[in-house]
Amino acid sequence: MPRRRQIPETYPSKIVSNCSDMVVLPSMKFSISHTDSQSKARRGRIETEHGTIQTPVFMPVGTAGTVKAVHQYELETEVKAQIILGNTYHLYLRPGTEILQAAGGLHRFMHWNKPILTDSGGYQVYSLSATRKIKEEGVEFASHIDGSKHFFSPEKSMEIQRFIGADIIMAFDECTPYPCDYNYARQSMELTHRWLKRCQAYLDEHAPLYGHTQTLFPIVQGSTFKDLRRISAEHISEANAHGNAIGGLSVGEPAESMYEITEQVCSILPLQKPRYLMGVGTPVNILECIALGVDMFDCVMPTRNARNGMLFTADGIINIKNKKWERDFSPIDSSGLCSSDGYYSRAYLRHLFASEERLAAQIASLHNLSFYLWLTHEAGKQIEAGTFYSWKNKMVPRLQHRL
Amino acid sequence: MPRRRQIPETYPSKIVSNCSDMVVLPSMKFSISHTDSQSKARRGRIETEHGTIQTPVFMPVGTAGTVKAVHQYELETEVKAQIILGNTYHLYLRPGTEILQAAGGLHRFMHWNKPILTDSGGYQVYSLSATRKIKEEGVEFASHIDGSKHFFSPEKSMEIQRFIGADIIMAFDECTPYPCDYNYARQSMELTHRWLKRCQAYLDEHAPLYGHTQTLFPIVQGSTFKDLRRISAEHISEANAHGNAIGGLSVGEPAESMYEITEQVCSILPLQKPRYLMGVGTPVNILECIALGVDMFDCVMPTRNARNGMLFTADGIINIKNKKWERDFSPIDSSGLCSSDGYYSRAYLRHLFASEERLAAQIASLHNLSFYLWLTHEAGKQIEAGTFYSWKNKMVPRLQHRL
Repeated sequence: MPRRRQIPETYPSKIVSNCSDMVVLPSMKFSISHTDSQSKARRGRIETEHGTIQTPVFMPVGTAGTVKAVHQYELETEVKAQIILGNTYHLYLRPGTEILQAAGGLHRFMHWNKPILTDSGGYQVYSLSATRKIKEEGVEFASHIDGSKHFFSPEKSMEIQRFIGADIIMAFDECTPYPCDYNYARQSMELTHRWLKRCQAYLDEHAPLYGHTQTLFPIVQGSTFKDLRRISAEHISEANAHGNAIGGLSVGEPAESMYEITEQVCSILPLQKPRYLMGVGTPVNILECIALGVDMFDCVMPTRNARNGMLFTADGIINIKNKKWERDFSPIDSSGLCSSDGYYSRAYLRHLFASEERLAAQIASLHNLSFYLWLTHEAGKQIEAGTFYSWKNKMVPRLQHRL
Repeated sequence: MPRRRQIPETYPSKIVSNCSDMVVLPSMKFSISHTDSQSKARRGRIETEHGTIQTPVFMPVGTAGTVKAVHQYELETEVKAQIILGNTYHLYLRPGTEILQAAGGLHRFMHWNKPILTDSGGYQVYSLSATRKIKEEGVEFASHIDGSKHFFSPEKSMEIQRFIGADIIMAFDECTPYPCDYNYARQSMELTHRWLKRCQAYLDEHAPLYGHTQTLFPIVQGSTFKDLRRISAEHISEANAHGNAIGGLSVGEPAESMYEITEQVCSILPLQKPRYLMGVGTPVNILECIALGVDMFDCVMPTRNARNGMLFTADGIINIKNKKWERDFSPIDSSGLCSSDGYYSRAYLRHLFASEERLAAQIASLHNLSFYLWLTHEAGKQIEAGTFYSWKNKMVPRLQHRL
């Protein structure tokens, strides 16, 4: 098994636990190699100290330091993930920052030596709407695990993200719900802008802990109000960060509204910086938003839906629990995006779901993540070839088809 | 990933669905290469049409056509399983014999091209003590899934095992509980003996379905009564099968009683046939019973205990949920029996269990199965080297140590 044995060898053998006297670390680099003539799609690469990310890219979500049901070496060799997400809120609660620091950061703790991005905790705290209080200083909330009280501020979020040590870290923001009252959306956006300053100030004063750069992405908010989105996109652009994110979408608004806001915000955000659309989405959402100029995506959909028996393929959607697959002994996906696709049959996978066996979620998660990574990789190849727009228009109806 | 791609190529490309006019298939072969001078331990090999099994051997349990939380290719390349078990009762209920037949048998259905052994359903039916009725003809029972009524007879069990198509199939028996009334144990043993004749008669009249041999192992019963065990072992020996099993142990009796009965039965069963001790056991049980002349073992303990956070190692037992491992960033098992052992730390695995993440059971199951396979493989090497007995006596206290 040479591929697995190699990993520890390339793994950093020492960590820098106190960097107060460190030299300036290299900045994340982004370069665009191709732009599509018929859309705003771009093909690029992000260079980090943990490796290069080809964009457009989908980032699997590894909430608590694990992409559910998938081994790290499977992410690397099967799924071909280039970067994964961690959730600050979850990692703060378990295993907690003390253990993460003792481990030398999340990369070492979970044995993942490629890039990691962490959210700020803002979204999870927003999801805990019944138990949280938002103030100027920050957010008080109760843990979903034991009800214990906690307080996140922009400074606290940055401190936790320093302990986690992700390559890309997110500004602490408020994610507004949908629908949202205009005045609330405006006040919330302004709060997110003030919080950004406090995030930047904290990072200026506190060096990273593990000897590699952590790049802050600020987040555009403003709900579905175009004037607020314009103000926010201009404000965020002025922050002159190495990358920018679009938050507050994929929270229940119609897809058309998501596309409209994404298009508007992308037209304002600087061209030469990567754009990350947070929490999006279906395969169709991803292709449409690549066409609008988005470079980076994350979503729990491929793994969560996998656990419920929904498989995404280039020919459409399979509900593998359906009786129609009971005697279908053909491969899960004949295009064979990962080893499991050709290894197991649809009938076998259906049986595993019917029997509530753990292997069901393992196989389906591997498949769906491999498909999402294939989709964004293929989009990049189509952009290079100048065929992205027609390919995208051909794929969109196919991807929505129910097999 | 060449190792995975190879598997479909070596997979049988056609199946024989109607074998009524087939020539006689080759018999399973067993040969003993070494016997231990200080104990009854033997080193041997079983040859089947799906490959060779080195004995002593531990057989992972794949209840419903999957060893819980473990991929088939991991069983092959990581765990180094030589043969796995399927459960007739579970496979009969799901996916059912029609689908198994349409798939071309269990090997093809689950994509496992090495040997398989199936139990007869007798043990599971015995476990359903509240809902089953045992008669001379067979056993009526209610499904644990939907309460539907079913009837297993020796003929029905053989018919189902023909549809499953395992290389080694078990006679339909009654497994008595512990403790057991003497008269009940005697009557039950006699019933098991009469049922054996019916199993043999069915198999004589019905050829295997998929073009490979299915070898019947009869089962010695008799509870913990030495005179009944002697009668049963003699009766089973006279059946002149290619292998023999010891049932009705590991059902709650003291370990000393299990060893005493195993020793007695092994002294009666033919030397030149493999001996399978059903449902046993802990690592210590396995080493002690190898010393008594047992060749084959199966047990849910490595996988079930893995899901509860108990890890078996050559240095003792780890309860990975214990707080003492919270900051132990050393490998799960430094002896590195499988890739995961060196890949993940104890602290990380503990975190996965604390967070109830699926990867926890996946890692722990891989580890425990790899350990059980290592243990029986190492026992074989020690028998070859003539050092088994002293090695076993050194290992027994270590294996019971709580780390």
